[in-house]
Amino acid sequence: MRIALGQINALVGDLAANAGKMRNAYADALEKNVDLLVFPELALCGYPPEDLLLKNHFLEDNSKTIVKLAADCPQITTIVGFAESYKGGCYNSAAVLKDGCVSDIYRKGKLSNFSVFDEKRYFNAGCKPVVIDVKGFNIAVTICADIWDVEWLGDFLEHTTQLQMILNISASPFYAGKTKKRKQVIKRCAEVFDCAVSYCNMVGGQDELVFDGRSILADSEGSIATIAKAFEEDLLIADFQMDSYGKIQIAGVVPPAGQPETGIEEIYHALVLGTRDYAEKNGFKKLLLGLSGGIDSSLTAAIATAALGAENVIGITMPTKFNSPETISDAGLLAKNLGIEFFTIPIGPMLDPFDKALEQIPGWDNKGIAYENLQARIRGDCLMSLSNQFGSLVLTAGNKSETAVGYATLYGDTAGGFAVIKDVPKTKVYQLAEYINKINNRPVIPIDIIKRPPTAELREGQKDIDSLPDYDLLDKILEGYVEEDKSAQQLIDAGLPKDVVNRVIRMVDRNEYKRRQSPPGIKITPKAFGRDRRLPITNRYSSCDDN
Amino acid sequence: MRIALGQINALVGDLAANAGKMRNAYADALEKNVDLLVFPELALCGYPPEDLLLKNHFLEDNSKTIVKLAADCPQITTIVGFAESYKGGCYNSAAVLKDGCVSDIYRKGKLSNFSVFDEKRYFNAGCKPVVIDVKGFNIAVTICADIWDVEWLGDFLEHTTQLQMILNISASPFYAGKTKKRKQVIKRCAEVFDCAVSYCNMVGGQDELVFDGRSILADSEGSIATIAKAFEEDLLIADFQMDSYGKIQIAGVVPPAGQPETGIEEIYHALVLGTRDYAEKNGFKKLLLGLSGGIDSSLTAAIATAALGAENVIGITMPTKFNSPETISDAGLLAKNLGIEFFTIPIGPMLDPFDKALEQIPGWDNKGIAYENLQARIRGDCLMSLSNQFGSLVLTAGNKSETAVGYATLYGDTAGGFAVIKDVPKTKVYQLAEYINKINNRPVIPIDIIKRPPTAELREGQKDIDSLPDYDLLDKILEGYVEEDKSAQQLIDAGLPKDVVNRVIRMVDRNEYKRRQSPPGIKITPKAFGRDRRLPITNRYSSCDDN
Repeated sequence: MRIALGQINALVGDLAANAGKMRNAYADALEKNVDLLVFPELALCGYPPEDLLLKNHFLEDNSKTIVKLAADCPQITTIVGFAESYKGGCYNSAAVLKDGCVSDIYRKGKLSNFSVFDEKRYFNAGCKPVVIDVKGFNIAVTICADIWDVEWLGDFLEHTTQLQMILNISASPFYAGKTKKRKQVIKRCAEVFDCAVSYCNMVGGQDELVFDGRSILADSEGSIATIAKAFEEDLLIADFQMDSYGKIQIAGVVPPAGQPETGIEEIYHALVLGTRDYAEKNGFKKLLLGLSGGIDSSLTAAIATAALGAENVIGITMPTKFNSPETISDAGLLAKNLGIEFFTIPIGPMLDPFDKALEQIPGWDNKGIAYENLQARIRGDCLMSLSNQFGSLVLTAGNKSETAVGYATLYGDTAGGFAVIKDVPKTKVYQLAEYINKINNRPVIPIDIIKRPPTAELREGQKDIDSLPDYDLLDKILEGYVEEDKSAQQLIDAGLPKDVVNRVIRMVDRNEYKRRQSPPGIKITPKAFGRDRRLPITNRYSSCDDN
Repeated sequence: MRIALGQINALVGDLAANAGKMRNAYADALEKNVDLLVFPELALCGYPPEDLLLKNHFLEDNSKTIVKLAADCPQITTIVGFAESYKGGCYNSAAVLKDGCVSDIYRKGKLSNFSVFDEKRYFNAGCKPVVIDVKGFNIAVTICADIWDVEWLGDFLEHTTQLQMILNISASPFYAGKTKKRKQVIKRCAEVFDCAVSYCNMVGGQDELVFDGRSILADSEGSIATIAKAFEEDLLIADFQMDSYGKIQIAGVVPPAGQPETGIEEIYHALVLGTRDYAEKNGFKKLLLGLSGGIDSSLTAAIATAALGAENVIGITMPTKFNSPETISDAGLLAKNLGIEFFTIPIGPMLDPFDKALEQIPGWDNKGIAYENLQARIRGDCLMSLSNQFGSLVLTAGNKSETAVGYATLYGDTAGGFAVIKDVPKTKVYQLAEYINKINNRPVIPIDIIKRPPTAELREGQKDIDSLPDYDLLDKILEGYVEEDKSAQQLIDAGLPKDVVNRVIRMVDRNEYKRRQSPPGIKITPKAFGRDRRLPITNRYSSCDDN
């Protein structure tokens, strides 16, 4: 029995284009004598479609398109995820296409409703297993979270016959290290049900999420027989055979795809894919960003260049009298290294008339934070003006550490459509910069930029360290408070300094309003800001230890 | 049996302050010989606490505070909503405080997970009814949505004894017309269970939501015996008596509170309360906004003045050469009428150096949309600079019609902390302006402002009508498309013009990215932008009729 996992990059809402990709994969599979062709969870409409699911006409279009697709794919049993209206409810479903018709439909039983997932807002849970026969193999169709709770799945599949395969279609968002968890889940599933597991994952960027692909075929022991490409579309083809003990052996028709070797490498690929897809899927051909000569904007520019090509990236440096000659020249050097277009717009001439106009308001002060923020906002205005004029997408360069503590100017450096490294802690920003220089075999990001103490350069002699703790310590506190929801007391008990812990927690809490108006960015950690972490702006709760 | 409904304005996360309010109400109730004292859903922690519920220490603090509160309120049976950690799950619970202890706990059975509600993200559903006896009255404790599905409630309460009262604690967010629905639900509940219904609602603003209070006591017929204040804290006290047929009669100790008479009147009060609470709960003493001399900013200024008082509102007009002398003088006249502080900052001196600096970029054009947006952004910079300098909250003035079609400049007129009339369609903006003039017995908002054709004044002779359909038609289309999730075809079938419908739908879809970065504002319709309507930015689905 020959299987093909069609790891496609679906575009949310573009049913016709997604179906077109599946038709192409079908044509390819047909040539290669495939018996069972599989596409990811909600492959037809993309994941997550969010409130599109509340539109009746959207669900009707899903059903119409799936029927047409079935008619176009008559010669291979094909599994396609789609959004289904059924008996007055909405379901996250897998259609089984056979002989030109929809021969069966499996409806997801375990709905995901945590982290970035809101499936209970939309879907009813299915309650009936679907087992199909393909060339004598009994195959249970499951969707994503169904296999993550193996006890539940055991009960759910209790009355089915002995299976040869559990087929799982997924749209499993990436975070660093997640593939290890997936492999554990798949192994456990194979062991418990004593059968092969075929896991077909989505690939591509969708707003804050990146789906990393890496679809997997595992044998009855739960050993990974083959794996699809990471962060790319793929059609993973393999042959299944049953030995005399009923065990399933799997032979890939090509060797397993190469995989990222380190956490930093996979984060890099996620950022590139997420940026490329956000731009392309939203119709942007050019990327635009401010280059300060600092590490964050340099990293963002390098990722932008990898995403859309140097010819489609424009860097603008916008110095004031507070910028050192070194940072200005480093910004230019970076642009030259990357081969991107580069302009210099000194903002002093805009800053002065603001200052003069605001002087008439009693109490205005051109030495304080308001004046610092004004500089960042003038830069935001320049970038947005160019974006409006030329239709380019402005990328912002704030990292997760800054975003957490609000070390950013709202409508200033947060002004833009996409926040590439929003979920990358500062400590990992450095590692990514080093990684980029390594794969390029030269310091594309100048060493001086990596070595220089971080500074916003909004006043004379300013350094990040004046306002923030050392980034190693800051990132440790943020990991505990933001990603693990620990209290100050728990962090202090773990050995972190009390005064810094309390200070950082207060900064994080106080800056929810800024994050709420910041652009979306790519999730690469288990808990990102955005739909993954939903806190009220109006909120007087304190996780601090105030004793 | 004497009951008191403690309709308090809880602050999310401020457990100590919320418990303090309940202690004060208890002291008041004690003086008035109350037998049963009731507080709203999640009154202890405020509603909705969102991801605070994922923090173990937050749940622990809830439990600790409820135990202390019980000890402080020993003489009256008291019902308090709180967030409870129980057997490894989290529950939306009502504690029954009696004799200084928590004597029983009811756990919400019907979790709300639609519109602005995400309760299934956090809570497990309870499965056990709680019926308490207060002076011989059998009282079933329920929470919010429990009574909205009376068939479910019938099954849930099937094995309980004959009830004399269904007690419902709620945090039911306002939209115009909702109180009518609530009264229907309460009436049906009274009829089905043949008993009185006591409905205690939250009051106050919380980010996008306003809770309108209006707690209700209804007799066995479902007739409203008395009702608490709208949009204010209240302690609604009444006496319950059972007649010889077992029917419950209710006598309020004071006459029912006066209620808003029209939809516009209730919307006005919701906007004032929502603005006041957002400011005060977030620690702002002053409100700041741009005054264009147009109807939207004028209405917003009038609401701001009603919310925090004229002495705490500052209006800034920021004209260019495109502003007519009439709008400039009307802005000043409005400020004078309201009695607020007023400054004029002409922005031409800032605009010119931007233009000059951007000229070096080949293709820059100072006649197009980019140049129009730049003017709005310079105004945003001025307001945000003053906000940063003086700690005042910037209010934005975009209405729902503009917000829907993206007729606004991101980081320009959308720059600010709170979008007061974000959910008010333009047609209702006019009605609110007329209403304000009526209650003030004079044209506080100058008639010229109301009469003048709307214009953004970002280029010579510009009128809204150049870019947008007539607002009557636009609002009809938006109501169908945004609030009712209808397709273009459905709207066209209902008699709306096809070309305009398709054009408007495309504008709405295309501008999701702007709304995502806009400030929160007050929900006053059944479906507001924000947590109420969650669409992907990256989205190629079209609800248009393209044939």
